[in-house]
Amino acid sequence: MSVAVEELSTHGRAALERASRDPLHRLPQGFVAATASAAIKKPGRQDMAIVVCPDGAAAAGMFTRNLVCAAPVQLSKRHLVMTRGHAHAILINSGCANAATGAEGMSRAIECVEAVARELDVAAEAILVNSTGVIGVQLPVERMLDQIPGLMQRLVDGPLLPFASAIMTTDTYPKTAAIEIEHEGRRAIVSGVAKGAGMIHPDMSPPQATMISAIFTDADVEPRALQTMLGDAIDQSFHRISIDGDTSTNDSVFALASGKAGAFPEAKVAAAMRAVARELALLVVRDGEGFERGIEVKVTGAKTKADALTVAKTIASSLLVRCAVTGGDPNWGRILAAAGRAGVALDIADLTLTVGGVDLFRDGAPADTPLPDRERVFREPLVAIHLDLGQGHASDEFFSCGLTESYVRLNADYTT
Amino acid sequence: MSVAVEELSTHGRAALERASRDPLHRLPQGFVAATASAAIKKPGRQDMAIVVCPDGAAAAGMFTRNLVCAAPVQLSKRHLVMTRGHAHAILINSGCANAATGAEGMSRAIECVEAVARELDVAAEAILVNSTGVIGVQLPVERMLDQIPGLMQRLVDGPLLPFASAIMTTDTYPKTAAIEIEHEGRRAIVSGVAKGAGMIHPDMSPPQATMISAIFTDADVEPRALQTMLGDAIDQSFHRISIDGDTSTNDSVFALASGKAGAFPEAKVAAAMRAVARELALLVVRDGEGFERGIEVKVTGAKTKADALTVAKTIASSLLVRCAVTGGDPNWGRILAAAGRAGVALDIADLTLTVGGVDLFRDGAPADTPLPDRERVFREPLVAIHLDLGQGHASDEFFSCGLTESYVRLNADYTT
Repeated sequence: MSVAVEELSTHGRAALERASRDPLHRLPQGFVAATASAAIKKPGRQDMAIVVCPDGAAAAGMFTRNLVCAAPVQLSKRHLVMTRGHAHAILINSGCANAATGAEGMSRAIECVEAVARELDVAAEAILVNSTGVIGVQLPVERMLDQIPGLMQRLVDGPLLPFASAIMTTDTYPKTAAIEIEHEGRRAIVSGVAKGAGMIHPDMSPPQATMISAIFTDADVEPRALQTMLGDAIDQSFHRISIDGDTSTNDSVFALASGKAGAFPEAKVAAAMRAVARELALLVVRDGEGFERGIEVKVTGAKTKADALTVAKTIASSLLVRCAVTGGDPNWGRILAAAGRAGVALDIADLTLTVGGVDLFRDGAPADTPLPDRERVFREPLVAIHLDLGQGHASDEFFSCGLTESYVRLNADYTT
Repeated sequence: MSVAVEELSTHGRAALERASRDPLHRLPQGFVAATASAAIKKPGRQDMAIVVCPDGAAAAGMFTRNLVCAAPVQLSKRHLVMTRGHAHAILINSGCANAATGAEGMSRAIECVEAVARELDVAAEAILVNSTGVIGVQLPVERMLDQIPGLMQRLVDGPLLPFASAIMTTDTYPKTAAIEIEHEGRRAIVSGVAKGAGMIHPDMSPPQATMISAIFTDADVEPRALQTMLGDAIDQSFHRISIDGDTSTNDSVFALASGKAGAFPEAKVAAAMRAVARELALLVVRDGEGFERGIEVKVTGAKTKADALTVAKTIASSLLVRCAVTGGDPNWGRILAAAGRAGVALDIADLTLTVGGVDLFRDGAPADTPLPDRERVFREPLVAIHLDLGQGHASDEFFSCGLTESYVRLNADYTT
């Protein structure tokens, strides 16, 4: 663990506590995992992680729509198609994204995958893979290959924590989530890990998202059903968050179902997967680079859900709104200005804006809420913006965080 | 002048020098102007400015497409329609945007306009008006009305500088530009002023852009031709810049033609207007809040000009690209990642990326340019990004600036 507990935010401490102590935050039956250090970016840091399902698992994936799509993402997409949704392992490294690395990058990704396949005595296409870190730099494939035999010898079941920690980049804490489901006296776990703090604006589609997440269950789920569940879960979670609007070259969410706990009603598994994905997505946004204060935008009274989402996303992504939140500055005019440029037809006279439940704009004019009340709600740990468009009955929500000086500092000096 | 010369950037000093000394940076024949202080935000600061064309002028305007459109912008649009493109004056205040202020905001804007109209003995619709500053706060209309008679008594021809200074908000220097045109021995001036440093992502349409600009000429131009010229000029200038992606509630560009210098070939006036608008737009982006380093993105080899513009705008607006530029960090992968999410079909294998003329990505793979050369081009005052899509012959360009800690600091504490 490379995390200094004393430097963590409240969110970070709670997340680390759960990852360390909550007995549910573990690999479900049928999965084992290990981590290693290949000194990809920093010597000594755990930067390779593998999860293995020795008897195979139903597999699904959601991958970035960014057309500059990393080699490992291309490879994983291809493998899921070839196997029609089955996998024996997921190999992930941090420190290097293996994106924009050309044919050489692809052949290095393939070398890693083939080494794992040989160790497991399965076909290469049974291995899923992803990388996260700097773009445009080649993987140190020799050092990685050297670590693979050791990884295989150390495979163990147990907590998700080591895996969640090894895939971190600028994350300040490991992200894990888990839910137990029950059916006819039998129990199964849906648990997952995620990483991501910058270049976060997931936009993924099925076998075709540097947020990386993996969700595991020992429930028995067919590959096609697993893909549908995963798509629905992502749409209500990772597709509702943004840290900087920059959709990554490597975003991926994998789902693996080992089947070891037997069959469960699909609705139960799907609900658990939605809940786990949502918790992981919120963990990601609360660990956004330079995080100081969260933003929740709820848009109601829209004609369509798509309109509500567009307005919510535009407000949550506005640099000026995000700066105001950082400053705890009740400059709510920026919220209306963002709504007005979202590309959704609206009439300012119909808008009602509250933040933290306090009236700011109503009946076409500024509300006369006293300044101290306005200031208070902009200084909460989570600034809860609610805009009603006054047009219909559709609603949606979106999550982001204040834009801070530390975000800029961190990203002005990331590679060098 | 509230500008401390010693604190200005090189750009700022040059701009101030030209505004102060260049004899062309003046009001053309037929225009007079004055400024006043109504203590709208800070006591003592010149925060009201008026330009008057005593004999009337052909008038055109481009106004924000933001649906949360300020009262003065709505009023100016209406006036231009009523007069079919004529005006006697433009009144502008800084310190308060009069946006999201409801019916009360509109009636205060009308009170100011009517006071000016009475002084000039013209119809109210002959007065154009705009405001810039904080959103959601009512105009201190009494203090403003008190200043109008004095403004009218101080009207003088001469330099654009006082007018350009009075409309500044977070700008660090006044923005003026001018070109002289000649035809058959006669001369006319096309000159203009602009303000804007934050909430800059102009998206304007004809009589329907807190960037404010006004362009003046003594050439004789019919209103309809003036509107067409202005639209073309804005499309190639203010619509090619972004500081933060936040399209304002108050963006407006006005053009006034007094006709005092007689008729000129339209192409000459149009070319001069394009050049003046472009210079003003570049002055705005170089004075972007927290400006340290400029970004120029040129996209070539696109199938269509629209594709080229979309990719250029996405790269120039990417927070991660903008942070890398601030850090002088050659993290060029972020440029490709931004291109990949722009929504334009592209194949990474066809892309060629240079920055400052130095190869970074070519033939589907990273170029082996030495690190010192890569670092050098990311540390120039203007980082010149050139991405060729390898698809066709269309090209376009877009301008922005590095995202800095000072931008965040400034905008985290703007109203309070």
